[in-house]
Amino acid sequence: MTQTPTASTEPTAAAGTRERLLEAVATLSYRDGVSVGVDALCKAAGVSKRSMYKLFSTKDEMLAASLERRAAQPSALLPPADGGLSPREQIMYVFERAEEIAPSPEYRGCPYLAMQVELKDAENPASQVAARIKRELQRYFEELARQGGAEDPQRVARQLILVFDGASARAGIGADSLEGHLASAMVSTLLDAAGVH
Amino acid sequence: MTQTPTASTEPTAAAGTRERLLEAVATLSYRDGVSVGVDALCKAAGVSKRSMYKLFSTKDEMLAASLERRAAQPSALLPPADGGLSPREQIMYVFERAEEIAPSPEYRGCPYLAMQVELKDAENPASQVAARIKRELQRYFEELARQGGAEDPQRVARQLILVFDGASARAGIGADSLEGHLASAMVSTLLDAAGVH
Repeated sequence: MTQTPTASTEPTAAAGTRERLLEAVATLSYRDGVSVGVDALCKAAGVSKRSMYKLFSTKDEMLAASLERRAAQPSALLPPADGGLSPREQIMYVFERAEEIAPSPEYRGCPYLAMQVELKDAENPASQVAARIKRELQRYFEELARQGGAEDPQRVARQLILVFDGASARAGIGADSLEGHLASAMVSTLLDAAGVH
Repeated sequence: MTQTPTASTEPTAAAGTRERLLEAVATLSYRDGVSVGVDALCKAAGVSKRSMYKLFSTKDEMLAASLERRAAQPSALLPPADGGLSPREQIMYVFERAEEIAPSPEYRGCPYLAMQVELKDAENPASQVAARIKRELQRYFEELARQGGAEDPQRVARQLILVFDGASARAGIGADSLEGHLASAMVSTLLDAAGVH
């Protein structure tokens, strides 16, 4: 069976178009907000609206797919799997990295929190993806808290992600640079109180 | 000197129009986000666009004025001035009230945080008003922390408003109801560690 050049290159071209679109959606929605227009997205991606609508029927679908794509990439916040860190050190790692990223002028906070705050609609597909990704982070904290000996790992995880979201939101709007290890010192105090060593 | 009926009622009518507009802006931008359209705002307020543009030249100006108006009203979060509470109890009061408000289905988090997250532009007049109002809350925490004997009241205030924003953001997107006094218990732990009694 032979393939024509068209048949063999089409999927690649579509994949490239999809990638460029989702990159533009991620960048522009993070920088300017979810109300960024479809025209601006297509222009930034160098993709026609016709091509866009072949791949996605709504902007919300694109927003959701751009979050999925971002979450599938390695996170700069998570410690290396084989880093030899204790559960408590792994938790601290996340907050120390967040503090390093926070002062950047391009930083607008956690993209998954911002998406939910902006859309104000838990039924929106992009809100649902964002909520799921944050629940995964919360479960990650919970598992580390359990391994670290917390009496109530679920409650510790709720506290940690609250600090995470508060820190990233305040840094994202430029209200606090988190300098002086503001967030990680709070986390250290909370872990002490919760018996996570 | 006599006034014609027109001359005496005009200022009242304009004030009423302004009030209705700002109430609609506050309600709809909080519920649906800052991208709410001028047509929807005028319709909800029962005001013509012509009347609106006599009062405000841009939507951002209206957003800013609606936050000013909201902040000028008595806050349900702050303890009564003559309540006889200690500085620490006054801090706890704020977080306990926030926990009571959080589970409401209409709750979308702190309106001043949400506005800044959504606008993503510190130069926007509405962002500037929102940032100023939150700095006032931070200074309020700082003064109470100082009165309560904190070693570093400024740092305590940064921690408290971080918890405030994290709690209100997570409750506002429906990620956490704050049940079990999640935020106030964290604040209590942090105040213990900071020497605020």
